[in-house]
Amino acid sequence: MQIIEQIARALDDVRSKTPLLHHITNYVTVNDCANIALAIGASPVMADDPREVADIAGIASALVLNIGTLNARTIEAMLAAGKAANARGVPVVLDPVGVGASRLRGDATHSLLRAVRASVLRGNISEIRWVAGDAAAARGVDAASGDALENASARKVAARVAAQYGCTVAITGAVDVVSDGDHTLSLCAGHPLLARVSGTGCMCNTLIAAFLGAGASPLAAALGGILCMNIAGERAAQSARGLGSFRAALMDEICALTPDILRRREVCL
Amino acid sequence: MQIIEQIARALDDVRSKTPLLHHITNYVTVNDCANIALAIGASPVMADDPREVADIAGIASALVLNIGTLNARTIEAMLAAGKAANARGVPVVLDPVGVGASRLRGDATHSLLRAVRASVLRGNISEIRWVAGDAAAARGVDAASGDALENASARKVAARVAAQYGCTVAITGAVDVVSDGDHTLSLCAGHPLLARVSGTGCMCNTLIAAFLGAGASPLAAALGGILCMNIAGERAAQSARGLGSFRAALMDEICALTPDILRRREVCL
Amino acid sequence: MQIIEQIARALDDVRSKTPLLHHITNYVTVNDCANIALAIGASPVMADDPREVADIAGIASALVLNIGTLNARTIEAMLAAGKAANARGVPVVLDPVGVGASRLRGDATHSLLRAVRASVLRGNISEIRWVAGDAAAARGVDAASGDALENASARKVAARVAAQYGCTVAITGAVDVVSDGDHTLSLCAGHPLLARVSGTGCMCNTLIAAFLGAGASPLAAALGGILCMNIAGERAAQSARGLGSFRAALMDEICALTPDILRRREVCL
Repeated sequence: MQIIEQIARALDDVRSKTPLLHHITNYVTVNDCANIALAIGASPVMADDPREVADIAGIASALVLNIGTLNARTIEAMLAAGKAANARGVPVVLDPVGVGASRLRGDATHSLLRAVRASVLRGNISEIRWVAGDAAAARGVDAASGDALENASARKVAARVAAQYGCTVAITGAVDVVSDGDHTLSLCAGHPLLARVSGTGCMCNTLIAAFLGAGASPLAAALGGILCMNIAGERAAQSARGLGSFRAALMDEICALTPDILRRREVCL
Repeated sequence: MQIIEQIARALDDVRSKTPLLHHITNYVTVNDCANIALAIGASPVMADDPREVADIAGIASALVLNIGTLNARTIEAMLAAGKAANARGVPVVLDPVGVGASRLRGDATHSLLRAVRASVLRGNISEIRWVAGDAAAARGVDAASGDALENASARKVAARVAAQYGCTVAITGAVDVVSDGDHTLSLCAGHPLLARVSGTGCMCNTLIAAFLGAGASPLAAALGGILCMNIAGERAAQSARGLGSFRAALMDEICALTPDILRRREVCL
Repeated sequence: MQIIEQIARALDDVRSKTPLLHHITNYVTVNDCANIALAIGASPVMADDPREVADIAGIASALVLNIGTLNARTIEAMLAAGKAANARGVPVVLDPVGVGASRLRGDATHSLLRAVRASVLRGNISEIRWVAGDAAAARGVDAASGDALENASARKVAARVAAQYGCTVAITGAVDVVSDGDHTLSLCAGHPLLARVSGTGCMCNTLIAAFLGAGASPLAAALGGILCMNIAGERAAQSARGLGSFRAALMDEICALTPDILRRREVCL
C-alpha cells in the first residue's frame, strides 16, 4: 500500500481509537500539545512526577518525551516513563530540543538514547546532527539559518541516525525528511508561517504519537504527523493575518483534516 | 430566591468585587484559567511554592486546587494552601484530575480530602465515582465513553459524595450535575465542542471560584460556573470553525456574559 | 537622534539580528512570551535548571527574569543566570511580579537586586513602589485600583528607583513611565483591553529584551517594548470582540508593526 494511503487510513484509526498520549514535555508549548491531540482525535495526558509516570505510561497508547524545559525531576521522569513504555510495548517519540545548547541537555539526551528505545526521534537539523555526533553547537531551539542544508545532506544525516539507533528519524524545518534507515523520504509541503509560531515542532511530536498510538508504523506515523501539520499550515495560512490568527486557524484546520484531504494534496515524497 | 436569579446577581458581584483567585493548578491549562478569571471579572494569582502559599491564600478570595500535573512540591503546596484557606474562611475548589490514573493521584486526593475542607469538589463522572469509593480505573483525565452514565446515576453519586464530605459536588461532562447533599440539580445546557477543547474543566473551576470569591453559596457558585461555561460554549459554537476559533470565541463570550443572558437562557434544572 | 526614531530603527535591528532571548519566567504566560518573541522578530529559549542556565544565558542576547511562579529551583536558576549574564555583558530584564504578596517574593527580589545588575526593571506601580521601599502590601499581581496614582507620582518613584539601582525602570499600567534616572518619560498610548488580558506585562518584558538584545539602550528598549505593546493593543482593539479575539489580534499586530507605524503614531512622551 502506498504510504499516503496508509497515512490517510491511519487518520481514521486515530479518530476511532482515540489513543491516549502521555506527554512529558516542556511547559512552554504544553497547552498547544494538549489541544492538537484533541484536534486530531486523540486524548492527552500530562504527568511528570517520577512516582507516577510508569502508571500513566502503562495506560497510554504512546509516550512523548521532550527536553525543552528539562530539570532533575523531569529527566528522572522521562527515563522512568521511557523504560516503562518500552517494557509494555508503548511507542515513544523523543524530541531532543535544543540539545546542543547546554551540557545538561546533551547529557540528558545521551541518557535517554541509551536507556529508552524511541520509535521516532524528531528534531530540527541542528538537533539531529548533534545526535549524529556532530557537536557543532546548536543555537537555541530553532534551526539556525546556517542549518538550511540541502535536502541531500539532511537525508544522509537522517538515514545515518536511524541506522545508528534503530529508530525512525524525522527532521523538520526548512527541509522535512523522514528515514527508518531503509527508506528515506523528503516532504515538499508546508508554509513558512509554521516556523514563526512557537511549538509547531512540539505539536508535530503529538501528531506523530497519535498515529503511533493508533497503530501506524513509525515511518507512516512520522510522515503522517508532519504531513498533517504541513497541510493544516498551508490551509491556515490562507486566512491568517499574523501569528495570532494563524495559530487559531492551524488548530481549526487540524480538526478539519480528512483522509481525502491528505490523499488529494499530492505531496511529492 | 430562585437559583438562576441568585447566579445572575452573583455575576454582577464578581464584576464589582474582582475577587482574587489563588490557583495551584496544572501547567497545561493554567493560562486558560488566568484568562478566564479576567474574562469573568475576577483577578488570578498563581503560586505553588510551599513557602509562600499560605501568604497568597491569605489575601485571596478563593483557592483552586487542581492535581492535573502534581509533584512533590505542589502536593505540599496544595495541602498548606488548603489548610491556610480553611483557617481564614477562604472557600476552596478541589479538582482531582485523573485521580484513578495513578497511585500518586489517588494518595494525593485522599490526603487533600482528609486535610482540607473543600466548598466545591468538581470532576468528571469517573473522578467523582473514584472519590465515592468506586476504584474502577479512570482512564486518563477525560471522561471515558463508558462514563456516559444516565443522569440518574450521576445524581446519585454526586449526592452521596456531597453528604460524605460535607461539600458541594459538581460533575461535568456529558451530564452536568451539582449537589450539596440536600439539593441535586442537573443542567441541560452546553455544546459538544466544550469536550473537544483542553481545559474547559479547569476553567470551570476558576469560574466556580470567582462566584465563591464574590460571596455566592457553594451550590449557586458551582451551578453558576458551569452555567457560564455552558452558555458561553453554546454561543461560541455558533461562529467556530474548529478548536482554535472556538477557544478564542469562548473567551470572548465569557467577557460578554451578562446577568440577563443567564436569566433568559431558561436552562432546565 | 529623537527617541522614537531610535526605537523605529531598533525594530529593524531586532528583525535583522533575531536576538536569542533567554527567559526564566512564570509558567502562566510563558507561551505568550515565546510567541511574542517570534512575532517581534526575536527567538525565544526557556531554560530554568540551575545546571544549564549559565550555558544558555551565555549564548543569549538578553535575559528575562520573572518571579511570577517562583520556587526554590527557579530562584537559584535566576540568580545563576543573572550573574552569568552580567559577567558576559548580556542585558537583563527583571520583573518582580507580585513582590508584595509574599515574604518569599520579597526575599527573592531583594536577592536578585543585590546579586544581579538589571538593565531594565519593569513592574506595575505597586511592585515598583515596593522596590522603592514602600512595603504597603501589593495586592496580587495586578495593579490595584488604588494604584492609579497620578502620572507625577509614578514618575517620581521611577526616577528614584532608577537612581537607587543604577538601572532603567519601567512602570506599566494605567500610567506608563520609563526612567533611567536622568530622563523620565511618560507614554500616552495603549488600550484598556491590555489590562484585561493575562500576560501583557510579561510579554512587555520580552519585547524590551528583544530591543536590548538588538543593541538598543535600556531607555530606548524599555520605551520601545512598551510602545510596541501599546500600539499593537490599540490596533488589535479595533477588531476585538472580547479577550479571546483581542489576544489573537494582538499577536497579529505585533507581527505587522513596522518602523513607520511607530514613527507615525505620534505618542506624546
